[in-house]
Amino acid sequence: MAVNFPLPIPSQLLPVPGIQLGFAQAGIRKADRKDLLVMALAPTATVAGVFTLNRFCAAPVQVAKAHLASAALISGMPIRALVINTGNANAGTGLPGLVAANSTCSALATLLNCEDSQILPFSTGVILEPLPVERLIAGLPAAIENLSEDNWYSAAEAIMTTDTQPKAASRQVQIGSHTVTLTGISKGAGMIMPNMATMLGFIAMNVKVSQPVLDTMIRQVAELSFNCISIDGDTSTNDAFMLIATGASDCEISDTESSDYAALVGALSSLSQELAKMIVRDGEGATKFMTIQVEQGASIPECRQVAYSIANSPLVKTAFFASDPNLGRLLMAIGKAGIADLDTGMIDVYLDDVWVVKHGGRHPDYQESDGQRVMQQNEILTRVVLARGDASAKVWTCDFSHDYVSINADYRS
Amino acid sequence: MAVNFPLPIPSQLLPVPGIQLGFAQAGIRKADRKDLLVMALAPTATVAGVFTLNRFCAAPVQVAKAHLASAALISGMPIRALVINTGNANAGTGLPGLVAANSTCSALATLLNCEDSQILPFSTGVILEPLPVERLIAGLPAAIENLSEDNWYSAAEAIMTTDTQPKAASRQVQIGSHTVTLTGISKGAGMIMPNMATMLGFIAMNVKVSQPVLDTMIRQVAELSFNCISIDGDTSTNDAFMLIATGASDCEISDTESSDYAALVGALSSLSQELAKMIVRDGEGATKFMTIQVEQGASIPECRQVAYSIANSPLVKTAFFASDPNLGRLLMAIGKAGIADLDTGMIDVYLDDVWVVKHGGRHPDYQESDGQRVMQQNEILTRVVLARGDASAKVWTCDFSHDYVSINADYRS
Repeated sequence: MAVNFPLPIPSQLLPVPGIQLGFAQAGIRKADRKDLLVMALAPTATVAGVFTLNRFCAAPVQVAKAHLASAALISGMPIRALVINTGNANAGTGLPGLVAANSTCSALATLLNCEDSQILPFSTGVILEPLPVERLIAGLPAAIENLSEDNWYSAAEAIMTTDTQPKAASRQVQIGSHTVTLTGISKGAGMIMPNMATMLGFIAMNVKVSQPVLDTMIRQVAELSFNCISIDGDTSTNDAFMLIATGASDCEISDTESSDYAALVGALSSLSQELAKMIVRDGEGATKFMTIQVEQGASIPECRQVAYSIANSPLVKTAFFASDPNLGRLLMAIGKAGIADLDTGMIDVYLDDVWVVKHGGRHPDYQESDGQRVMQQNEILTRVVLARGDASAKVWTCDFSHDYVSINADYRS
Repeated sequence: MAVNFPLPIPSQLLPVPGIQLGFAQAGIRKADRKDLLVMALAPTATVAGVFTLNRFCAAPVQVAKAHLASAALISGMPIRALVINTGNANAGTGLPGLVAANSTCSALATLLNCEDSQILPFSTGVILEPLPVERLIAGLPAAIENLSEDNWYSAAEAIMTTDTQPKAASRQVQIGSHTVTLTGISKGAGMIMPNMATMLGFIAMNVKVSQPVLDTMIRQVAELSFNCISIDGDTSTNDAFMLIATGASDCEISDTESSDYAALVGALSSLSQELAKMIVRDGEGATKFMTIQVEQGASIPECRQVAYSIANSPLVKTAFFASDPNLGRLLMAIGKAGIADLDTGMIDVYLDDVWVVKHGGRHPDYQESDGQRVMQQNEILTRVVLARGDASAKVWTCDFSHDYVSINADYRS
């Protein structure tokens, strides 16, 4: 089902010195599938994260945020490992959920000979069901057993839920005399409208980066990648995007104004966008990959508001699924975006190279056959020109198909 | 498909003295279907309206608002008729669209021997396509030919688009020595998340009401009826809810503080809620009728925000379609509603009589079999208790089915 999905090739996923990955089949929800991942970090590593803004923030997210904060405050207590389970989100689980997340950290800390607060836990899967934490903990030794720098592909498989494809990619970038390697994984595939972060995304790179610089870097990169996608407008309770600088090279980035910083952010943004787009291409039931680009707005937030209003409209998404140039629905979605002083008489809309709407009305030369031609494609760019400023924003999304309904009506069964 | 739809019985739709209805088959989009409606009013009538807040407000809505404003300002120039076409929304049509809406008014004014500004035009159907105004105008004489007080059922049929059922109902209420009759019609069935008004709703009553009182009355009533529903979260370009006081009786309401006013608003709210719920029961592809009630919020807008976040969540809607008590999705939707200081640890959630979530986590006694039992029903009440104030709000919505996708993928073909 995935749309033009760039299937990761295991041999092209580059190991990143300073991080090892181990996986296991813990049987958390289903038997015989990888559902547990441990990422073990060198003691030189720094870690930054952005997390869901959903108020029903899952227990592991609460614990991860607290541990991240304490690692940043207390020197000599760096994060040593991340542990991720699928099959259960450990969200809406109250105090027992927090206890389970803490027990997970504690068990892994014992095995790795560090403090509980040096572990970051993550979960994804069904909400409101108790986490079978004893099965998770029982799976940890097997995951540690196969820790290796070469396990990125298996790691991507181990965090899948309704994803049909593992999502992983690598980049290399020259920083001074150093060749820096960046490798990351992500997962979707529904309940996706990131608000500071996506479902799950992890990127590691073998550079030294101080905590404040890494915190700035992840926010910049998230804003241009994971925060630009939507499958269904539903923001998860468990979203997290984590950036790991393993410190396992002499390359150090200490200044956000330096050209080295810019070079690294460039490579990182490219990688993050690839991982984010993979989530959209493999969105639940997706048959089309849509880019919504809003230009000449008064501000970036306003452009994003219009782009998301289009991207999340069920009527727009079903029209794209049907390859039906029922493009009035685009105008509806622009108009309902909540921009109170929007002058619709200024707005132009393009579908790829076809000029559909001029000054708020159907372009006199627009032919439905032209719209039809573009709608047949499985990758479509919608451009909305607001003509009221110089800001712009871009959102990637997918269509709304019968399979989306099937997948989400059958998800737990 | 409609859920427990109370099919209107033509003989139970009561004529309202002072308003006559005439319909025609104008062939605006398809042949052989009623697609044109004229409502002719006594010269004693007053009319109030609430309209879509979509910035891509359709040409007829713009014209109707202007004519309504001028009727309110100039004495002796009351609204004499409403004209409604289906099959084409005349939205996103620019200047030619405005010309078409004005031509429609002009043609009907000539036939009824009044001024253009005494006519209110309404359209519903496909957006961004030119209105075949010559066919509409050619159909007007036939509609006038069959004007009658008894045509409410046919009128309800004449404004249908993807509706599977005509929507109409009546009430009678005793005001002093007068028996006042109220009859109304409405239409859905997609692109429904009213923001001041629904797709189309028209209610007439044989009372005398001054313009300022009628304006207050319609806002109060809309807030409790048409503004409490959502099919898909998409706000139409053409929404309008119109309230007509024909003045064709000696009963006069002149004071919003009077008991007569309260009695009339009671009957009107009951009728409006029935018409609004009919839209939800006949929502595109609906198999379940869901009431989302949010209680103990800090304010009514906050309660509505949470209720709509649930009502519009594709993942909640598909879970209800599947009769799957995947109720973590309710927590997700509450958490993403945008209430920044929401304390999730205080929240309780009930599904009909089943207490599912206590203090933000799964209730210890909650059994999935209980959730399953309620989910099998085709009418379900979800209650969310925020425990942070004394405001409450209610929203009616429906589920998200394969048929929703089918209907909206095939709508124009």
